[in-house]
Amino acid sequence: MNIRLYNARILSMEENRDIFFGEVWVKKDRIVYAGDGTDTDSIYQKLQIPCMIWDREIDCEGNLLMPGFKDAHTHSGMTLLRSYADDLPLNDWLNQQVFPVEAKLTDEDIYELTKLAVLEYLTSGITAVFDMYLTPYSIYKAFDEMGMRGVQVGGVNNFSQSPELLEEYYLNLNGKSPLQSFMLGFHAEYTCSQELLMKISEIAHKYKAPVFTHLSETKAEVEGCRERYGMTPVAFLDSLGMFDYGGGGYHCVHVTEEDIAIMKKRGMYAVSNPGSNTKLASGIAPITQFLKAGVPVALGTDGPASNNCLDMFREMFLVTGLAKLKEEDAAAVDAMEVLKMATVNGAHAMGLGEADVIAEGKLADLIMIDLKTPNMQPLNNIAKNIVYSGSKINVKMTMIGGRILYENGSFLTDEKPEAVYEKANDIISKYK
Amino acid sequence: MNIRLYNARILSMEENRDIFFGEVWVKKDRIVYAGDGTDTDSIYQKLQIPCMIWDREIDCEGNLLMPGFKDAHTHSGMTLLRSYADDLPLNDWLNQQVFPVEAKLTDEDIYELTKLAVLEYLTSGITAVFDMYLTPYSIYKAFDEMGMRGVQVGGVNNFSQSPELLEEYYLNLNGKSPLQSFMLGFHAEYTCSQELLMKISEIAHKYKAPVFTHLSETKAEVEGCRERYGMTPVAFLDSLGMFDYGGGGYHCVHVTEEDIAIMKKRGMYAVSNPGSNTKLASGIAPITQFLKAGVPVALGTDGPASNNCLDMFREMFLVTGLAKLKEEDAAAVDAMEVLKMATVNGAHAMGLGEADVIAEGKLADLIMIDLKTPNMQPLNNIAKNIVYSGSKINVKMTMIGGRILYENGSFLTDEKPEAVYEKANDIISKYK
Repeated sequence: MNIRLYNARILSMEENRDIFFGEVWVKKDRIVYAGDGTDTDSIYQKLQIPCMIWDREIDCEGNLLMPGFKDAHTHSGMTLLRSYADDLPLNDWLNQQVFPVEAKLTDEDIYELTKLAVLEYLTSGITAVFDMYLTPYSIYKAFDEMGMRGVQVGGVNNFSQSPELLEEYYLNLNGKSPLQSFMLGFHAEYTCSQELLMKISEIAHKYKAPVFTHLSETKAEVEGCRERYGMTPVAFLDSLGMFDYGGGGYHCVHVTEEDIAIMKKRGMYAVSNPGSNTKLASGIAPITQFLKAGVPVALGTDGPASNNCLDMFREMFLVTGLAKLKEEDAAAVDAMEVLKMATVNGAHAMGLGEADVIAEGKLADLIMIDLKTPNMQPLNNIAKNIVYSGSKINVKMTMIGGRILYENGSFLTDEKPEAVYEKANDIISKYK
Repeated sequence: MNIRLYNARILSMEENRDIFFGEVWVKKDRIVYAGDGTDTDSIYQKLQIPCMIWDREIDCEGNLLMPGFKDAHTHSGMTLLRSYADDLPLNDWLNQQVFPVEAKLTDEDIYELTKLAVLEYLTSGITAVFDMYLTPYSIYKAFDEMGMRGVQVGGVNNFSQSPELLEEYYLNLNGKSPLQSFMLGFHAEYTCSQELLMKISEIAHKYKAPVFTHLSETKAEVEGCRERYGMTPVAFLDSLGMFDYGGGGYHCVHVTEEDIAIMKKRGMYAVSNPGSNTKLASGIAPITQFLKAGVPVALGTDGPASNNCLDMFREMFLVTGLAKLKEEDAAAVDAMEVLKMATVNGAHAMGLGEADVIAEGKLADLIMIDLKTPNMQPLNNIAKNIVYSGSKINVKMTMIGGRILYENGSFLTDEKPEAVYEKANDIISKYK
């Protein structure tokens, strides 16, 4: 499909570029033009066609186009456990409620449950997700069939998956679909033996690849690691050479200054999950310290069992709001910084450098924000409106790889939502 | 209009009543029936009509009816200042940005800006607001014309309004419109002289009426009061007899155990504003302590200049989320307690005992929650879904006093949103 989006405000998220008025042209899965629409003749020439034939021309009516949000940490298949066991202490929740159900899930269950998550991502303008869960092949299939850009990450630990499987996934799940990729990773320090971690580090060195993991999410995790190895999780994993080719940590709530220095040195990303950290009472991540140290921060929803929603608007408000509370400073972490976390930084963390901004040659992963809703008015400052006042209600269109998958409240995915809901409810009734 | 809503799940919010399946009948502005729909013949008889003639019959398709949310603290007219000056320290924000613009606002400006807020309330399922702002007559007009249930509260302080005006508003703005009322109140201890406060207390005694005010919102406020009077704001105001007939405090972030005991003794409400307290870095209110002491907690958005959105879903997630963080306990403040804050407690605080639950004889202030969206699936626990995963996207219908004002994303208000947006943008351009 070739699609012309015109009469739009455009927040390209390129460095130092203000919102401008103009159009975005999409040819197949790429952006071939993003500009003010006045120099289009030369563009037609450059594209070597006398006049672009459009499959669709969309009048954006002054609404905003921006890069889609990148959900840089999630467990999509956990939609099953949304509101299944809330308001419980963390240990009870995990050991008595989550793990016993997860142990019974089949590949097919997770395939269906992942599709439910995809529908929700689309409603929140999320165009790519960084997903860690149990069954990479069926998750790959679900993302690909739904049209979702999925970057999966290994979740190996003492109880499931293995270094061999991790390597197999890495080799099998990259380079096959334009929408799917796989990165090295493991569940967490506290669920992996040192021997296992060393094998993962070896694989990272073999492929010169970055590694991602749950990192310093809770106080107890850090204390446990100190007892086991006399080091924080960041320092211990780094001592194994785990991050010699970069990577990052999910959560990163309880990190020290030394941890932050290591993360900076290794080119690591801090993927913050403020919604989950709030609901599970894990704490507030030191966002300002990461930014000061030059460690890029990305944002993720975490899985729907712990958050419970897959909504980047919630995460955006919380990442700055909680920083303001933590530092007792209403000026902490400004809105543009937050938008960068939710788009550009997420894309870079996930190896999606071609899906970071709206610009010629980039992947057409973009969204339209409805500005004609009461929560976006008046138009004092659109970027701040999105971060502080935005909601799923504002997502007018979600496009991934040039394909519009959600528009004006309707899903244009191949599988219809009613079928997905029915299957999810069937699955939960099996385990209740 | 007589409206029959059938094929619905109903969360009536009556004490100890689970969600049930059935219908709600609305006759003019009242609920005349809420039940499972099997005993309707006797109801027809009781209503003394052989067969109800419906103006509309709405198939709810299994979606949820519940009482509308009560936004128990807001400043609607501040829509003007949404995203006008964010990411600033509190004092700069207030003194350099907010106050200078507010000083110039006319009655007519506030009338228009209040209408913009009403549109947003409707999108969030808010059916009544507890509003404190500068021009009660023009705000009254805006609410009434838009069909919004408005409970205004006095905002008298050393710089605007007066005890005489407060009494005038109280006498003039009650009992005239079925949708509008007015309660005694003042801005805050720190903006009122002791002499002024004593006059307000006299008025409260004259009318045996509750009094509401901003109360212990910031540390600085409490410290200032201690310096001035050697007491906390709660204790000092109580020493003037201010709360002898009840009332409540907005924010109540920095209260002591003694303060909470006073609030309990006086039958006061703690109206929490977690969104605003987060964004302005004011702190986290001691919600669990209020609940333990038996002080009912209600929820408010505060004004759009400090939050920046008017969204009870945000407030619901935050009031429990921040309590969990504060107490490092994921079990703190469960979801049903939060729903009670957002509906029943708010109604009672605002003197709207007839708009608290869905039951025969109550005011028809209710909303329909769309359960057929990905964030509400699967249906493990609907109440928890609403609190932890709900969003404006889930508000399928908002009805106030039997009148549907918002349905399937469209406003059925007399004034259309485009006209409201245009006027709001015109007003801001005057002051920029």
